[in-house]
Amino acid sequence: MRASFDLSLYLVLDPVQCGGHDAALAVARAALDGGATLVQLRAPEWHKRAWFDLARELLPITRARGVPFVINDHVDVALAVGADGVHIGQRDLPADVARRLLGPDALIGLSVSNLDETADAETLAGVIDYLGAGPVYATPTKTDASTPCGIDGLAEIRAATRFPTVAIGGIQAHNAAEVMRAKPAGLAVVSAICKAADPREAAAALRASIARART
Amino acid sequence: MRASFDLSLYLVLDPVQCGGHDAALAVARAALDGGATLVQLRAPEWHKRAWFDLARELLPITRARGVPFVINDHVDVALAVGADGVHIGQRDLPADVARRLLGPDALIGLSVSNLDETADAETLAGVIDYLGAGPVYATPTKTDASTPCGIDGLAEIRAATRFPTVAIGGIQAHNAAEVMRAKPAGLAVVSAICKAADPREAAAALRASIARART
Repeated sequence: MRASFDLSLYLVLDPVQCGGHDAALAVARAALDGGATLVQLRAPEWHKRAWFDLARELLPITRARGVPFVINDHVDVALAVGADGVHIGQRDLPADVARRLLGPDALIGLSVSNLDETADAETLAGVIDYLGAGPVYATPTKTDASTPCGIDGLAEIRAATRFPTVAIGGIQAHNAAEVMRAKPAGLAVVSAICKAADPREAAAALRASIARART
Repeated sequence: MRASFDLSLYLVLDPVQCGGHDAALAVARAALDGGATLVQLRAPEWHKRAWFDLARELLPITRARGVPFVINDHVDVALAVGADGVHIGQRDLPADVARRLLGPDALIGLSVSNLDETADAETLAGVIDYLGAGPVYATPTKTDASTPCGIDGLAEIRAATRFPTVAIGGIQAHNAAEVMRAKPAGLAVVSAICKAADPREAAAALRASIARART
């Protein structure tokens, strides 16, 4: 279990959406400058060598800011580069297996999309650190995603779990305040930063929106 | 490095070609009855949970026959189930990283398709155990495969390496004898067994063909 982490503005870095390896590094730096509090690498179209090459360049960037860096799905890539943890989905390796492979200090997040998956996750105390709940809205980023849970579904998941919960799925500047009404621990975004004309500015605007919603 | 292994008849088990999880277990058992000497699990279309569920059922089957069981690409799945090793391609995790994660006793194979990749592999003494050379022929199994190297290319690769080399790519009963003329350590097959009406018989016929070619 990770001693401390901040889910407020959780960047899911998709290097294809960013425009490739070098562009992804630039987006990560800019997003951290703008206030991203956690970075996840997710590159479903990429071979693992490309994940490895990018992940080992991202790690010192996130380390320099004291922000955790996790790998989507691939526990082996996380181990290979010494990342801070993984984020796994319902069809990835089981959470207890990931914990066994990564050790007690890793940060492990699990995606849930409904109350059944949330109830299952509740049995994983000591195994996982947080939940990713969604998709809140329909999103073109993840073509195999579950049915959107909406704001009400997000609020139900949050109320049903002891774990801090980051909302994900179709979250953009224009709907961030609405999502925050369900009181998640934070917002996870992909295209809202990866495809932004100014990723630093996009991250800063989201952070401001999150801060306003909490007051 | 694996103390001993036999590349003679190397089954690349594709559970989708077999017809699913249960069918893949049946094909593996039948192929081992027919004389397969090594089993690799390769399911590029599958999520990792399905790999994990199948791999942990395959391992006791291969262990009972004393045949090594390796995982294609996913070092984390190999670690999760305690498989005997991995087979990696040029775009997977680097071989030295896989060796570091899997430890000194794992069996690690590397795909090469030309003399440049073979020359690179020659620097990996102590890291990898064998080469997979191919595709020998064009094959519909692996849609992103390199240009076929042919029998002459296979012979060149074999002559350029100190590693035992298993030929792969489009190998079927009707061309097995032709491939063996390049004197590989063995033949790797996918559809020739996974799609066979009688996988045990298909494996036995290939073993017989390999034995004849060696006399």
